[in-house]
Amino acid sequence: MDVLETISEQRLHGGVQGFYRRHSDACGGPMRFAVYQPPQAAQQPCPVLYFLAGLTCSEETATIKAGAQRLAAELGLALVMPDTSPRGTGIDGATGDWEFGEGAGFYVDATEAPWSSRFRMHSHVAEELPAWIAAHFPVDASRSGICGHSMGGHGALTIALKHPSHYRSVSAFAPIVAPSQVPWGRKALPRYLGADPAGWAGYDACALVRRQVFPGTILIDQGESDPFLDAQLKPELFEQACAEAGQPLRLRRHAGYDHSYWFISSFIDDHLRHHAAALGLS
Amino acid sequence: MDVLETISEQRLHGGVQGFYRRHSDACGGPMRFAVYQPPQAAQQPCPVLYFLAGLTCSEETATIKAGAQRLAAELGLALVMPDTSPRGTGIDGATGDWEFGEGAGFYVDATEAPWSSRFRMHSHVAEELPAWIAAHFPVDASRSGICGHSMGGHGALTIALKHPSHYRSVSAFAPIVAPSQVPWGRKALPRYLGADPAGWAGYDACALVRRQVFPGTILIDQGESDPFLDAQLKPELFEQACAEAGQPLRLRRHAGYDHSYWFISSFIDDHLRHHAAALGLS
Repeated sequence: MDVLETISEQRLHGGVQGFYRRHSDACGGPMRFAVYQPPQAAQQPCPVLYFLAGLTCSEETATIKAGAQRLAAELGLALVMPDTSPRGTGIDGATGDWEFGEGAGFYVDATEAPWSSRFRMHSHVAEELPAWIAAHFPVDASRSGICGHSMGGHGALTIALKHPSHYRSVSAFAPIVAPSQVPWGRKALPRYLGADPAGWAGYDACALVRRQVFPGTILIDQGESDPFLDAQLKPELFEQACAEAGQPLRLRRHAGYDHSYWFISSFIDDHLRHHAAALGLS
Repeated sequence: MDVLETISEQRLHGGVQGFYRRHSDACGGPMRFAVYQPPQAAQQPCPVLYFLAGLTCSEETATIKAGAQRLAAELGLALVMPDTSPRGTGIDGATGDWEFGEGAGFYVDATEAPWSSRFRMHSHVAEELPAWIAAHFPVDASRSGICGHSMGGHGALTIALKHPSHYRSVSAFAPIVAPSQVPWGRKALPRYLGADPAGWAGYDACALVRRQVFPGTILIDQGESDPFLDAQLKPELFEQACAEAGQPLRLRRHAGYDHSYWFISSFIDDHLRHHAAALGLS
């Protein structure tokens, strides 16, 4: 079961864009993920950037829509894009709601039945997948960064804040920063983690940063025409938490941009350069 | 019926990515198309590049997958991406075959019933759509280029060769260059244009270039691992026709690349620069 299955590999910007699948002990079934190996990976291990996608997305979404590979090829940065949840779980209620279940794993290790048997995306993304990447691909795992969008921005921030020694850099597009306080989180977290809000704090970037800062500036981009800005995202809460905690934060607000991958692709190069600088590539 | 319907408009690289629909007299029904307006379009009319997609694709495909907007924004180049056929025609046999009918218009004006009532993509792309673009968007129509992929590469080459005064530049990715001689064309052209091969020559780039060359170098990129290379694409036929006709051609063959948008996105910047130079942008 420790076999890497190659779904496809195609030439892209002088490197290789691949889609893969492997049995996940964390999630109790097969997990898919995408890896872009830049041309430099043929010569030497490359630093790696993880990109976590948002609600409704899969390992294909950012791979196809973010436009990250062009500059990654130039910089010599590998890209890893996981799925957003286990799939085909067969659990009653796991499908049919875009805000919960399959496609909406929220990067937590569920503690509540029946979700706890499969929905352990925190362990998958923070521990298991990096081990797979180190085993199967020419990456320098000691130089890793993490980024994400929306629910995936929540994932990137919480995983980096919980495991600051694993990542040299972190950034996010339009992240959920306070899931304990907004409708998306208040709907999903009780089902995955139980009704006690104390159990949610370990997956709440605003709470986590007050416990332990990340050793580096966090970059966040946010569109001012994002329809989820006021109700779900509330970057001002993270801005305040970082200020109180002494966490360096670069929060940029962009007039006219929404929540889509058009927004992400407009600023992805800035994020790659943010990570490249921390990963010793520029 | 001359009303432009805006389906969506979103901020992208400082410009606007929009999807639109308008009633087409050429195709006897609504036609969708995508336009990217670069940031410079807010100040002055911009040159425009048409990109024609291939079999199974729509106005969304290259818009989402080609990655052209980043450099277009830098250059000040508008992008127009039409659909590949009329949709919802209700004609018996128009759907269900990816090589013919809806999604496979082949950029011809059909002469055979029942296709001739709706499948007039040549007139739509070469005449009607440019008039719409000039009427509704801040473009300098006197500076237009045309590019395409596969069936859309066939469209770009044939439209440019039939209307050389309309375009200052033409390029293609993995184009069908000799539809009269390959299975895709020999399946579709008789149904659209009748059984007489003489009627196909007006939509065959190899035949057209022997009648009239294009006043500029044609750029073509072709992946050497393209699964359609030997049976359907045969760039050597166009290479020979151009040599015989005195048509300047830059045909590049790329080891390891296939027929996909990963291939296109790897070289799209070179095509944009090819057009930008001819359109007075660099």
